[in-house]
Amino acid sequence: MSYSSRVHDILQRAGAAEGDTLLVRSEGRDSTGVLMPHHDFSHPDVVVLKLKSGYNVGVMVTPTSEVRVVSKSEVREKRPKAAVNGKGKKEVAVLGTGGTIASFVDYRTGAVHPALSAGDLVATVPEIADVCDVRAEVLFSIFSENMNVEHWQRIAEAAADRINSGMEGCIVPHGTDTMGYTSAALSFMLDNLTRSVVLVGAQRSSDRPSSDAYTNLLSAARFVVDTDAAEVVVLMHETSSDTAAAVHRGTKVRKMHTSRRDAFHSINVSPIARLDFEGSIEFLSSYRRRSEGKVTARTEMETNVALLYFYPGMSPAAFERVLNDSRGVVFAGTGLGHVSSDMVKAIRRAVDGGTSVVMTSQCLNGMVDLNVYDNGRDLVTAGVMPGGDMLPETAYVKLMWVLGQTSDPKKVREMMATDLRGELTGRREVA
Amino acid sequence: MSYSSRVHDILQRAGAAEGDTLLVRSEGRDSTGVLMPHHDFSHPDVVVLKLKSGYNVGVMVTPTSEVRVVSKSEVREKRPKAAVNGKGKKEVAVLGTGGTIASFVDYRTGAVHPALSAGDLVATVPEIADVCDVRAEVLFSIFSENMNVEHWQRIAEAAADRINSGMEGCIVPHGTDTMGYTSAALSFMLDNLTRSVVLVGAQRSSDRPSSDAYTNLLSAARFVVDTDAAEVVVLMHETSSDTAAAVHRGTKVRKMHTSRRDAFHSINVSPIARLDFEGSIEFLSSYRRRSEGKVTARTEMETNVALLYFYPGMSPAAFERVLNDSRGVVFAGTGLGHVSSDMVKAIRRAVDGGTSVVMTSQCLNGMVDLNVYDNGRDLVTAGVMPGGDMLPETAYVKLMWVLGQTSDPKKVREMMATDLRGELTGRREVA
Repeated sequence: MSYSSRVHDILQRAGAAEGDTLLVRSEGRDSTGVLMPHHDFSHPDVVVLKLKSGYNVGVMVTPTSEVRVVSKSEVREKRPKAAVNGKGKKEVAVLGTGGTIASFVDYRTGAVHPALSAGDLVATVPEIADVCDVRAEVLFSIFSENMNVEHWQRIAEAAADRINSGMEGCIVPHGTDTMGYTSAALSFMLDNLTRSVVLVGAQRSSDRPSSDAYTNLLSAARFVVDTDAAEVVVLMHETSSDTAAAVHRGTKVRKMHTSRRDAFHSINVSPIARLDFEGSIEFLSSYRRRSEGKVTARTEMETNVALLYFYPGMSPAAFERVLNDSRGVVFAGTGLGHVSSDMVKAIRRAVDGGTSVVMTSQCLNGMVDLNVYDNGRDLVTAGVMPGGDMLPETAYVKLMWVLGQTSDPKKVREMMATDLRGELTGRREVA
Repeated sequence: MSYSSRVHDILQRAGAAEGDTLLVRSEGRDSTGVLMPHHDFSHPDVVVLKLKSGYNVGVMVTPTSEVRVVSKSEVREKRPKAAVNGKGKKEVAVLGTGGTIASFVDYRTGAVHPALSAGDLVATVPEIADVCDVRAEVLFSIFSENMNVEHWQRIAEAAADRINSGMEGCIVPHGTDTMGYTSAALSFMLDNLTRSVVLVGAQRSSDRPSSDAYTNLLSAARFVVDTDAAEVVVLMHETSSDTAAAVHRGTKVRKMHTSRRDAFHSINVSPIARLDFEGSIEFLSSYRRRSEGKVTARTEMETNVALLYFYPGMSPAAFERVLNDSRGVVFAGTGLGHVSSDMVKAIRRAVDGGTSVVMTSQCLNGMVDLNVYDNGRDLVTAGVMPGGDMLPETAYVKLMWVLGQTSDPKKVREMMATDLRGELTGRREVA
């Protein structure tokens, strides 16, 4: 939107427009790719080219740079204007929330900013118009570590509204850091879900080489439109190579690597599906099917809930306030769900005082079982609820949601022990 | 030691002794195996047989049970008494601490008790006498979730003492729940290590079918005696089948499943070695070699350190006391090492007040990088130390140890950033 006058002039002289394939010779290096839309926060001297591989690269245009149009936009020549926008195809809502997928490198500072609008984001994937008619909007734009209950509520309400008004489903571009928490929250909040809500992220920003934003976004659109699923899922790269996406159930997914593109894994279950970037879609487990009717967003949540990670030497005194002043506490205990005998006593006092306590395992894989060892049985006696094979993060979100729905302790216990959204599989693995 | 008079009589009539292969017909089922030593906490009517597979099974002897000696103890017939005890072979210390590996099922209640002495434990693996001369002792016997700094110190001091007095190394049977924490603690505490210290556990108690105690213990003895390594390691099953053990570096290992026998994994590195149960040993990464000289146990640790797991909605107020009153805090942040902007402010106040704060990632895999996003840079500005690719648990133990060695903030920062025991590999994976 705001190139420098130098870049503006060079592009104009070359007769280059967005969507054209350009060769840019700059600082002795040639780059060939499709000219992408410019956005405000980029350096005004940088043009972004989508390479043949699907990756984007930013090229600094210097006074000595040369730009040549290799070919005019194929899309514009081949298809009527309407099809470019996916007109006539099924409508899919893209609800922007921020994150790396909607961010780009500021070439002045090297920093990553979360400022690409949902529309700009979708514009980096022109092929999406072959799949659906995108209705992009920005709900908000934040780093996902700043997400909280209010953000979850806004996404859930928007998703329910767009689906109820006839859209084919929702794509939610989201920062990867807390995507698993948000997907769990949407899973519990969206009742009678009739279409899919796909959270999608990127481990590399969309204007960098090796960005996974492009393939993940396109795959998300395909999952929404081309399958009969009605699930809250996370869709990310299946492996570190650029071949397929894995679709994970919203309550069973966890970010398991800080930087790899295949960071997301389903824990204790198979992914729901696998989408080959060549076009095939394979379901790997059972899933909820589309239906008619109205989606309800039941977004009430208790925010006074804590997640505590147990470790040897953990001082009950230091955590007294958290334990006693919270409405709910989820522990990630050791092994089958253990904490020290000291902590058992502190937990007993908290439960007696009205705190709902749930035990999960920091092993992440496998089920808690509080009936094997003395310490576990003491926890049961103290009134602690076993979390089955729930992820600690999912148990935290579920407890917030359950305490938002009811304040009856018996009902809380019952709901925590019931599989509501595929979060409790109860599969017991002995190996 | 205390069979019921019924069992005592039946065994005597049959002429059966420990080590003999018996056929026990009880309640319509035949079981054939080697009669194992009886221990006090077992039901007085139960005999424990080691099956041909290496697994142990407890058989309830009823008034109608029949016992027949299939063959007398091979060991006693084939070898002189001295060899049974491994006399003449290298001495290896077995330092009992409790845990499933040294526990057994109480057949009256079905509960698991941690009461097998180190001697009894070793007696369940007679083949260990072919490898070394075991010097077994019980340091203490607790569930590992009750371990704390004092226990780590006692193990480290005993290990240094036994190695300095000429033993070939130490085997530490340990509960699996917190084995990774203890192995990290011993790694930092043991300076100038000249022989190996092998922590070994079991996911099934040693008197149950499918126990992994037998093969893990035997493999630990082989690793100590048959290799030239001088490392603190965790040795557990490599896969869920009974074929090989993996040897993990003490600072890079984590329990990743609540119940599987192959629960332990090296994170961000390869295991150090693989021991085939058929006999071969293969090293998979570089390792510290044996040397002469004295091992020093530098066991001083600061106990006022906390490990906090960040999650969306985490209230800085609830954790104010932990943050401000602790000498050190390790965070398991999201992704590359992030927390919410609210929490950044709380951390800044804590650091200003003198708390040493280290950032790791709840992704477990990969490295933290606080220089990519604004929130990360704010943490650096606040004085937070990046934890590289350290596990949150290892960073917690290391910070306790470093704060036990020095109170100079500059020195603390320097030591936390230096790879002392293979805990910081600095390998950066881009995929």
